[in-house]
Amino acid sequence: MQIAHASTESLREWEAQLTAEFQSYKNAGLNLDLTRGKPSGEQLSLSDAINEILAGDLSNETDTDLRNYGGLDGIPECKRLFAPVLGVNQDEVLIGGNSSLTLMYFAVLFALHQGFGELGDSWASEGGPVKFLCPVPGYDRHFSVCEHLGIEMIPVGMDDNGPLMDEVEALLKADASIKGIWCVPRFSNPSGIVYSDEVVTRIAKLGQIAGKNFRVFWDNAYAVHNLDDNAPALACLMTACRAAGTENSVYLFGSTSKITYAGAGVAFAGMSPANLKAFKHHLGMTQIGPDKINQLRHVRLLKDSNGLAAHMRQHANVLKPRFDIVLNSLQENLADTGMMQWTVPQGGYFVSVDTLPGLAKKVVAMAAEAGVKLTPAGATYPYGKDPQDCNIRIAPSVPTLDEIAKAMDVFVCCVKLASVQQKLAA
Amino acid sequence: MQIAHASTESLREWEAQLTAEFQSYKNAGLNLDLTRGKPSGEQLSLSDAINEILAGDLSNETDTDLRNYGGLDGIPECKRLFAPVLGVNQDEVLIGGNSSLTLMYFAVLFALHQGFGELGDSWASEGGPVKFLCPVPGYDRHFSVCEHLGIEMIPVGMDDNGPLMDEVEALLKADASIKGIWCVPRFSNPSGIVYSDEVVTRIAKLGQIAGKNFRVFWDNAYAVHNLDDNAPALACLMTACRAAGTENSVYLFGSTSKITYAGAGVAFAGMSPANLKAFKHHLGMTQIGPDKINQLRHVRLLKDSNGLAAHMRQHANVLKPRFDIVLNSLQENLADTGMMQWTVPQGGYFVSVDTLPGLAKKVVAMAAEAGVKLTPAGATYPYGKDPQDCNIRIAPSVPTLDEIAKAMDVFVCCVKLASVQQKLAA
Repeated sequence: MQIAHASTESLREWEAQLTAEFQSYKNAGLNLDLTRGKPSGEQLSLSDAINEILAGDLSNETDTDLRNYGGLDGIPECKRLFAPVLGVNQDEVLIGGNSSLTLMYFAVLFALHQGFGELGDSWASEGGPVKFLCPVPGYDRHFSVCEHLGIEMIPVGMDDNGPLMDEVEALLKADASIKGIWCVPRFSNPSGIVYSDEVVTRIAKLGQIAGKNFRVFWDNAYAVHNLDDNAPALACLMTACRAAGTENSVYLFGSTSKITYAGAGVAFAGMSPANLKAFKHHLGMTQIGPDKINQLRHVRLLKDSNGLAAHMRQHANVLKPRFDIVLNSLQENLADTGMMQWTVPQGGYFVSVDTLPGLAKKVVAMAAEAGVKLTPAGATYPYGKDPQDCNIRIAPSVPTLDEIAKAMDVFVCCVKLASVQQKLAA
Repeated sequence: MQIAHASTESLREWEAQLTAEFQSYKNAGLNLDLTRGKPSGEQLSLSDAINEILAGDLSNETDTDLRNYGGLDGIPECKRLFAPVLGVNQDEVLIGGNSSLTLMYFAVLFALHQGFGELGDSWASEGGPVKFLCPVPGYDRHFSVCEHLGIEMIPVGMDDNGPLMDEVEALLKADASIKGIWCVPRFSNPSGIVYSDEVVTRIAKLGQIAGKNFRVFWDNAYAVHNLDDNAPALACLMTACRAAGTENSVYLFGSTSKITYAGAGVAFAGMSPANLKAFKHHLGMTQIGPDKINQLRHVRLLKDSNGLAAHMRQHANVLKPRFDIVLNSLQENLADTGMMQWTVPQGGYFVSVDTLPGLAKKVVAMAAEAGVKLTPAGATYPYGKDPQDCNIRIAPSVPTLDEIAKAMDVFVCCVKLASVQQKLAA
């Protein structure tokens, strides 16, 4: 039944039922957690061979000793493995340490304070404010990089095709102090959508209309993280940039944090050779080089694109049933109620749901009261401010199937109760 | 014979002999390298067990899964292992990734742009220039961090006890824009000296006389890198700071780059709890956490302070004969010539030599001509400028014993020939 058409009498009846149900969850002393987009122990174990895979054999393709210093941009076999994940050439990729966030932080930092070598001076040298476009809902750690470095964030909306490109282009034309845009183009965090081909093409052309030294920060964190085999593909950004002559306007990122070990994987960045030259110069001031031994472990484990795809299918086997529980629960309990909208992701780590306006914080607080932890409402918006207070990110990867089912029962109850109470108070 | 007392005739005779010798080296087509302070393959192999040490067993002291995200400051058993290396408490240490240079870069960056949390605002917020004292000769990568971040460097002299503290204190009293000093306190890079107890005590008191938010950057890179068992100890800086009430004025750093694998070790930082709180806040904007799996490998391999000491003795067994060749060659060939001064390090990776003023670049160029690569003259000074043009850093760890002997023959010949030619031209 649609909440909008419910009589006050029905609403009161619902409220009583739901309050009793909510109370029973509170009494149950639950302790469930749907907050973190991280792999489960079962997923991590898929890569445990990595811990002995180098035993007695460090053979590799370089003529240097991987145990020693050097090799700022990583080992060639690792570049060959991960360049296709980003869709760049092997001379356009750098393999780093265990954190793509660190590569992104450095990329923003260097652009802000140190500039682009032959390609241009730093954003700060222009003297004015520096601004980023932030498609919302988005990834909180992108936003905290901007906040930490004093970069002003401008939220822009998204639909099922990606960022609202009319809006993006209009903003860029109007304000040359906008220097960047954060994108999670495939299985976007948190909405799960995949940018359409048209959106990718228009993003590749932003470098033509933006101000000086604009960069797209393309965090392809879930590039190969399909939940099923027929998940939509993502068009290749660098190919579109080559067609548009804007290769220097994009930085691409990825990592194996959700492929091998979340805490001990390898990260990578893709850039035009000119960008890479400047980035490597600056990165070389911060380190001698990444852990090449761990890079070799990854090559031994995953081997090539086929090995990687097979490995990711094993992840999907673990993840898919968890997503199904969440999506089935939403469908069975909230479809046709008018209380909630959600996406049906075919990959990634999240289900993004929207409550009725003004209820996200309340639902998260109620769920916590009943022993179900959810990501704080607003976390998916710059400065933690969701103007509609409606978006909630559900991350079902870690709990067991039973725990997710129980947590969703609680969540559904909270959504319904909050919605009914709001309607009654209106 | 002292060059100062040599007759023109003797000098001409020398020049002829040395020129012939130099020509014979050039004809020999040598290809030797004394440039890099890095471990040899033999040293790296001492740690090869690290590659299989976790096979089938990731047991550890935390209640979290080390394979997953989290743990920004490292695992407790690794803190227990390395806190004593820095001489700090376990709640004063953070274990990072594979690069102490990265920790140092971040420490300077955060101090410059983001500040110290409750302890104070950023250096940049004061509006004026930011300056560092740089005891010379020193480590070029410290200087490049300053240069990269736009920090002005002021060289200060050193003697066998460490930096010239009268000079350091006078500069700090006179100029509140001096915000830091770089120190390599044990087996200093490159001079090999160990700071005396008095110098350590005076450095601990700098926080009392320096301007606001001054920090000592104490890079104890060679803390346990003795060449023999009776090498001088270093007084504990943090203990001296506790006595002086200046715990917040120092950052300490170290790593296993020259203990296990140079490219795949772990780095650590020591700080007062107040400093650590602010540092961790900022570091958390750049990453989720370090590679904890590699930290566990290190604990398994080195175990405890005794295990670490035993491991370092094996390094010394490989390194000591190499240093002996260098030092014996200098002693046999250049003692009492007045052409060269040098230090006799009891640890670390370098022998620092001083030519007669104005000859370092020439000697390095001549050696290169004869197939012996040396660290570029001047590299041990801020901006690459050695005002006396006399310091050369010799790094004998990588070549074989025969190669070092041959390289030293060439080096000695170059020093003598350059000195004689200079004297003749005077």
